[in-house]
Amino acid sequence: MRRALDAAAAAAAAGEVPVGAVLLWRGEVIAEAANAPRALCDPTAHAEMRVIREAAARLGRERLEEADLWVTLEPCAMCAGAIAHARIGRLYYGASDPKGGAIEHGPRLFSQPTVHHRPEVYGGIGEAEAAALLRAFFRDRR
Amino acid sequence: MRRALDAAAAAAAAGEVPVGAVLLWRGEVIAEAANAPRALCDPTAHAEMRVIREAAARLGRERLEEADLWVTLEPCAMCAGAIAHARIGRLYYGASDPKGGAIEHGPRLFSQPTVHHRPEVYGGIGEAEAAALLRAFFRDRR
Repeated sequence: MRRALDAAAAAAAAGEVPVGAVLLWRGEVIAEAANAPRALCDPTAHAEMRVIREAAARLGRERLEEADLWVTLEPCAMCAGAIAHARIGRLYYGASDPKGGAIEHGPRLFSQPTVHHRPEVYGGIGEAEAAALLRAFFRDRR
Repeated sequence: MRRALDAAAAAAAAGEVPVGAVLLWRGEVIAEAANAPRALCDPTAHAEMRVIREAAARLGRERLEEADLWVTLEPCAMCAGAIAHARIGRLYYGASDPKGGAIEHGPRLFSQPTVHHRPEVYGGIGEAEAAALLRAFFRDRR
């Protein structure tokens, strides 16, 4: 989570909402990214999407059952859907997101009967620092 | 929808689940794609995601308020989330998808109070042909 938090801090410095993610495959880091929809002109370029896409491309496989995904913020519906499609094994996240999260808020995607895959989920890891980064970012923007 | 159905048929021929999408910007087609997670080794490479990413890159903007997105199948949670992030203006889809759809099934994403944007939604367009393509594909795979 340390590396994901550092990626999030770098995103804030670049003017992006500070969220970072790291993906491990069989215990080894193989992808690391920050939220970058503005820089990339890509509304789907959330940190989670970027590490999933990079890891799948690097491994040459579309299913990542043995992956651990670490992300500083509770994933949104898009990212939770991608996590299910990619068959991610374990999801660890930092701050909860009552406004946009889709794990413990809103659609609670992994509790839906139609979801095709549910990772193990561990929330609240590094929550204080992850939330502080987001608060500082939005405070500075006001 | 004709072009989206043709893209879906081409996907089936390539061994991918047959779903196609076309994105119009101010009435002009600017992106067209089929479902291709296997070919691209990318679990996020649904037809809708591909046209949204291509259109955003071509237009150099991450919000596509004036876009019409046509897709042959009811979008899943990942794609519905991306549609909301991209602020797509109008969504037209073909077959409904009780197993994986997230518009009229499962999480019904655009009915969630936490969704940040709701497009206008028109379902059932070209439904018979879209559903027949999917049925034939899965029948041949059994």
